Amino acid sequence: MKIGIIGGGTVGQTLATGFLGKGHEVVIGIREVTDAELRKNRNGARPLADWQSGSGGRVVTMTEAAAFGDVVVNATSGLASLQALARAHPADLTGKVLIDVANPLDFSKGMPPFLAHAYTGDTSLAEQIQNRFPEARVVKAFNTVAANAMVDAAFVPGEHDLLIAGNDPAAKDLVTALARGFGWANIADMGDLVGARAMEGLLPLWIRMWILANDPRVNIHLVRAA
Amino acid sequence: MKIGIIGGGTVGQTLATGFLGKGHEVVIGIREVTDAELRKNRNGARPLADWQSGSGGRVVTMTEAAAFGDVVVNATSGLASLQALARAHPADLTGKVLIDVANPLDFSKGMPPFLAHAYTGDTSLAEQIQNRFPEARVVKAFNTVAANAMVDAAFVPGEHDLLIAGNDPAAKDLVTALARGFGWANIADMGDLVGARAMEGLLPLWIRMWILANDPRVNIHLVRAA
Repeated sequence: MKIGIIGGGTVGQTLATGFLGKGHEVVIGIREVTDAELRKNRNGARPLADWQSGSGGRVVTMTEAAAFGDVVVNATSGLASLQALARAHPADLTGKVLIDVANPLDFSKGMPPFLAHAYTGDTSLAEQIQNRFPEARVVKAFNTVAANAMVDAAFVPGEHDLLIAGNDPAAKDLVTALARGFGWANIADMGDLVGARAMEGLLPLWIRMWILANDPRVNIHLVRAA
Repeated sequence: MKIGIIGGGTVGQTLATGFLGKGHEVVIGIREVTDAELRKNRNGARPLADWQSGSGGRVVTMTEAAAFGDVVVNATSGLASLQALARAHPADLTGKVLIDVANPLDFSKGMPPFLAHAYTGDTSLAEQIQNRFPEARVVKAFNTVAANAMVDAAFVPGEHDLLIAGNDPAAKDLVTALARGFGWANIADMGDLVGARAMEGLLPLWIRMWILANDPRVNIHLVRAA
C-alpha cells in the first residue's frame, strides 16, 4: 500500500519506518524540501536526510505526500494540523483514509501541555479535519500512545488498548488491520468521530502518567462489564 | 468519622449511604432544607426524605454540612460547585480534607456533555476549589467512575483503577483508606492537584464508554512498565 505521511517529526518518522518495515511504500511530506530542511533536527527527531538515506522512504512536499498515499497520515503538531493539511489538494484526499494521529496540545505555558480550547468541548481536532475535508475518510488512531508504541504494541507490557474512531466503518477496518500489523491485539472502537473527543481528551492523563513514571511505556486498558 | 456531603443528587446519596454502611456519621447538605426540597426528585435520584428516613443520615444545609464534617465531600454538579461551596464558611473548611468528586460537565448542548472551557486547559475544577479555599486539603477522587462503583469497586468486574490527586499526602492517604473500605485495590496516585486535569479530562472517555456499552460498569486500568 502507498502511505503518505504529513509531518517529519518523531511521530512521522517512527510511523514511516514502521510502515516501511511492513512492506508498504512510504513518503514523508514536509512543507519545503530543501537541503537545510532535510539536515535540521526536527523537534528532537533525527534529520530527515538520515531517515531518507537509511530507510528506503522518500521525503517530498506535503502536497505530494497527500497525492501519493492511498492512505494519508496526519502526523503534524496538532495546533498546526489544519494549516499543514491545507497544503493537500482536496481532490487528493477524496475517498482516501486519512489517519489523524495528532493532538492539539498547547506547549506555550510549559509542561505539562494542555489541550487548546479551540479543539475541545463539543469538538475535536479530528472532527475539524473531517469538516475541512468532507470527502476524506478520517480515522482518529494512534494518538493516545507514544510513537514507539504506535508501531510496536509490545513497547508497553501487558494488556492495553489502542483506541480508534471514525465515521466510515471500512476505513476503521483498514486502520485496524494496519494496527494489527504493529502487534495491537486490543483495538477499542470508540464509534464515530465524536469518539475523537474522548481520545484527544486522554492526552492529559497519558502525559501525566509519563511524567509520574518518567517512562513513556504507559497506556490504559479499557474495562467493561458488557 | 464525621462526613459532610455537599449535594443531594445520586452521587451525594450513594456516597452518603456508602459511608454510613462503613459506620461513619454522615449528613447531606443542600441549599435550603424545606419540605418541598426534601420531597422532590433530584436529577433522577430519589427524594431526600426517603434517604433520610431509611439511612440513619440527616439532611442539613450546605453550610451546616461543611461545619459538621471532619471530611467534606463536594458532590454537587461541577458547573455549580464553586457557587455551592461558597455557602461553606471558609473557617469550617480550614485543615479539613475536601474530597472533590465533581466534574465540570456542560449538558447545555445535549448528549454527550463536554468539559466546560472555564475548567479546562491549564486548570481544573479541583484546582479552582483549592484556590478558593487555600486552607482546605483538596483531594480529587471518585470522579472517574459511576456512583455505584465509587462505593463498591466490584461494580465493575476485573482489574481497574481509582485515580486520586492532591497536594497533601496525608489527605490522600486518608482518602485512599476510605476508598479501600469500598473495595478499591488499585488506587493510582496522580500526584499533586495538577493531576486533576487528567482525571476530569477522563470524563469524555468514560461517558463514551458508557454510551457505547449502554452500561455504566466501565472504567480503565492504568498500564505502566515502570
